[in-house]
Amino acid sequence: MNIKFMEKALSLAEKGAGFVNPNPMVGCIIVKNGNIIAKGYHKTFGGNHAEIEALNSLTTDPRGATMYVTLEPCCHYGKTPPCVNAIIESGIKKVAIGMLDPNPLVAGKGVKILREEGVEVITNVLEEKASKLNEIFIKYITTGSPFCLMKSAMSLDGKIATKFSDSKWITCDESRRYVHKLRHRYTSIMVGINTVLVDNPLLTVRIPGFEGENPIRIIVDSKCRIPLEANVVKKLSFARTIIATTNENNNTEKIKRLEDMGVEVLILPSKNKRVDLNILMKKLGEKNIDSVLLEGGGTLNYSALKKNIVDKVNFFIAPKIIGGSLSKTPVEGDGAPLVDNAFLVDNMITHRFGQDIMIEGYVGKRRID
Amino acid sequence: MNIKFMEKALSLAEKGAGFVNPNPMVGCIIVKNGNIIAKGYHKTFGGNHAEIEALNSLTTDPRGATMYVTLEPCCHYGKTPPCVNAIIESGIKKVAIGMLDPNPLVAGKGVKILREEGVEVITNVLEEKASKLNEIFIKYITTGSPFCLMKSAMSLDGKIATKFSDSKWITCDESRRYVHKLRHRYTSIMVGINTVLVDNPLLTVRIPGFEGENPIRIIVDSKCRIPLEANVVKKLSFARTIIATTNENNNTEKIKRLEDMGVEVLILPSKNKRVDLNILMKKLGEKNIDSVLLEGGGTLNYSALKKNIVDKVNFFIAPKIIGGSLSKTPVEGDGAPLVDNAFLVDNMITHRFGQDIMIEGYVGKRRID
Repeated sequence: MNIKFMEKALSLAEKGAGFVNPNPMVGCIIVKNGNIIAKGYHKTFGGNHAEIEALNSLTTDPRGATMYVTLEPCCHYGKTPPCVNAIIESGIKKVAIGMLDPNPLVAGKGVKILREEGVEVITNVLEEKASKLNEIFIKYITTGSPFCLMKSAMSLDGKIATKFSDSKWITCDESRRYVHKLRHRYTSIMVGINTVLVDNPLLTVRIPGFEGENPIRIIVDSKCRIPLEANVVKKLSFARTIIATTNENNNTEKIKRLEDMGVEVLILPSKNKRVDLNILMKKLGEKNIDSVLLEGGGTLNYSALKKNIVDKVNFFIAPKIIGGSLSKTPVEGDGAPLVDNAFLVDNMITHRFGQDIMIEGYVGKRRID
Repeated sequence: MNIKFMEKALSLAEKGAGFVNPNPMVGCIIVKNGNIIAKGYHKTFGGNHAEIEALNSLTTDPRGATMYVTLEPCCHYGKTPPCVNAIIESGIKKVAIGMLDPNPLVAGKGVKILREEGVEVITNVLEEKASKLNEIFIKYITTGSPFCLMKSAMSLDGKIATKFSDSKWITCDESRRYVHKLRHRYTSIMVGINTVLVDNPLLTVRIPGFEGENPIRIIVDSKCRIPLEANVVKKLSFARTIIATTNENNNTEKIKRLEDMGVEVLILPSKNKRVDLNILMKKLGEKNIDSVLLEGGGTLNYSALKKNIVDKVNFFIAPKIIGGSLSKTPVEGDGAPLVDNAFLVDNMITHRFGQDIMIEGYVGKRRID
């Protein structure tokens, strides 16, 4: 067993990012006498699993070889036949697994069958990396609700826009390119109605040469104030648009017009006259949306945190100081009354994008009231 | 010449931090046949220079040896006789210098004399590190105004206090310990009157076993609103307190009472009814204050940036999200109208203190209006 082959399998797996959702990313490498004799990864939703891709690409006899696969091989008939069968038939002697299937109903079953058939199995090889790679899949498969990443681009003093709502551009090209990669990797992108009213964004992926799909656009618009000429309403050829609203304002007519234009409207129960975000997330999960990139303003971001729907944060910090008591900040709303009531962030680490610094973390135990 | 000896000399120099101001920190190592035969550093203001400390500690004949010194040896009679004389007399053959004297009137003169007397000299050895070590000295000696570090402790979403002004404690022990080291290293600490009114701080160094001096406390208080019972007014045994005010409010009586209590009051010209910070910095420079640690709130921080008196920033970022449209942020005031008008920050790097991340940078070209 050599950990560097699992590293390679993880890198391979990542190539599926943005193409396999709501499936997991999986990579697989087959090694014989220290040499890689086959590679494969899960390329697209509904396509071959990584193990099958690797086995299909063999030009050497795999008997006695070791397979490195980032996720436990499946043992059920889904869109494809079970991978464990193919592994056993191939004569592979040993399987190193990154992480067990996160679905508690099937976790360990693939391993059990392999072992019963005489295949040596090692589990949890680089498990932490394997889990992080599939954090979206793990959350979605275990809860039915999408994984939510809150992304913000701010100045060093914590401003996302000036008092005149100018925000173009706080962060540098490298940061913005990475955000477009996130838009590709995440199945949907969520903003509040204010962002639509102020910026009229398209919310598409803008990467030169990009050929994947744009994220589904989700607009949280409790009072259905969205203009019919907004880009996200008119330009549906780019991507689906879902408007999450309530019946607060008696919007039946407007909703009908939006639906006639091709926009999907979710009429949700309201809580304090606002869309109940927990119910929204459940509804999105039911629509096979495994992930939400939240690019909200301060109001929506605060509500999302308070409703406990945010799993991860990415704060891009630019080497600029905007200042201003009336400038916009990434998280607003009521806020914590005391520091002890703040939301906690776990495992904070930094990344560098050009001259910007990005702080990544996971939202920990909720502290506010 | 071996760069590792200069590294050691720089580490030695740093031991003088907080004790030598407004002098520079200087370290010196004498090496003969690859062995360190003497070490010295400038320990305290008015004390021996590093070169003399090293020469005095010799137990071996230094003839033919190499001296590594972080700053160009002096050639003038100040509080002590010129170091170049002592070096020449010692028979040292070669001198490696970190950086030239930043004072343009004397830069290079020490080198010239050494060379004329047959000593080999190499300059700019680890010059960048040597300059950074003495950034305070360089600014002060070349401009007469103190070097100003703006320090802020904030949540990941850029809040320095909740809407109820609670700020205890946003950052962790390790960060706060480092801030107390900064209070020791800097000759003075500056806050606005609001900080005094809200927190009534002592502004002293709190490091267990600390035996240095506390920083001089500077309170920017344009209308002389400071309560006579404030800690910085009553507890003068800890440190000097300077109140920077104006004549706006006809404060003659209050000023007299403050002065009677032992507080130093600077009555400065006002600009828009506020203390002119540029003049304040000049006055502080005249009082031999080489450095200001600015621990201001958003209003004072913005004014300081706008007046171009801030050289460096340290933003401590805690893994917490406070949120709140009414929470306090590190830089407020009017703010930049457009992103293009923001203050720029150069050479942004990160440090880790416990679970916090500190972003350090230097204030670049001023962009606002």
